[in-house]
Amino acid sequence: MTFVLDPRLAADTHKLGDLALSEVLLMDNALLPWFILVPHVSETELFQLDETQRQQLFDETTALSAFVSNAFPVDKLNVAAIGNVVAQLHVHVVGRRRNDFAWPDVVWGRPEREAYLATTVAGIQARLATEFGSRFKIPGGEEV
Amino acid sequence: MTFVLDPRLAADTHKLGDLALSEVLLMDNALLPWFILVPHVSETELFQLDETQRQQLFDETTALSAFVSNAFPVDKLNVAAIGNVVAQLHVHVVGRRRNDFAWPDVVWGRPEREAYLATTVAGIQARLATEFGSRFKIPGGEEV
Repeated sequence: MTFVLDPRLAADTHKLGDLALSEVLLMDNALLPWFILVPHVSETELFQLDETQRQQLFDETTALSAFVSNAFPVDKLNVAAIGNVVAQLHVHVVGRRRNDFAWPDVVWGRPEREAYLATTVAGIQARLATEFGSRFKIPGGEEV
Repeated sequence: MTFVLDPRLAADTHKLGDLALSEVLLMDNALLPWFILVPHVSETELFQLDETQRQQLFDETTALSAFVSNAFPVDKLNVAAIGNVVAQLHVHVVGRRRNDFAWPDVVWGRPEREAYLATTVAGIQARLATEFGSRFKIPGGEEV
């Protein structure tokens, strides 16, 4: 299949790189560590994936969750596949703190945003590359 | 371990039964089909589970998601582990419709509620029992 990232996801995020099944995106909101996995599939629900792809997506979600928990000062992770606005299947992994702007509410639908500095995005990308090693492919020559 | 369901989850839901790892709860809100899986574990994050338990929880989430999609008229599923208010690990599987009270927003934190009739809850429990067969244990003699 030819995979095309949903334009709204593309506009709202920085692409950090690719795992075996999923693109790893960073929501352009420096207020908290908010990552999104977008598997290269056409289904819109997790349960519709074939077992191999579902397992791979769960594995990537688990690995990304461990990364967010270890790399950032977070009190709780919020892991969710919602897709009411953007139907393309995607999984949010959001690191939450008890003093963040929305706590204890969820972050979806909230307007608070602060754009990242490019150097900060590059730093997060480098940490992901260190953590995931050869499993993580950085887009060759692309600007983050 | 001795598992005790969080009192807030207990107060907000009907217990429908048990799968191998998780209790199956129904949020007491007849406005939309909102199920919650509560695995009998002490960890609070999905990634902290050992691989066997995590796989089991993912399998139960997948099976429950397919059930909700098939048994109710839904346009989208929202599947999420949040836990900002109730830290005990639990996974929401919410069937959404484009004309429900919150669409396209998420349901968490919204006040809209309509209590279920007991007969409706019993009917949902019976459908789960049919779908899951011997994997689904209904609490013996308890009122739903």
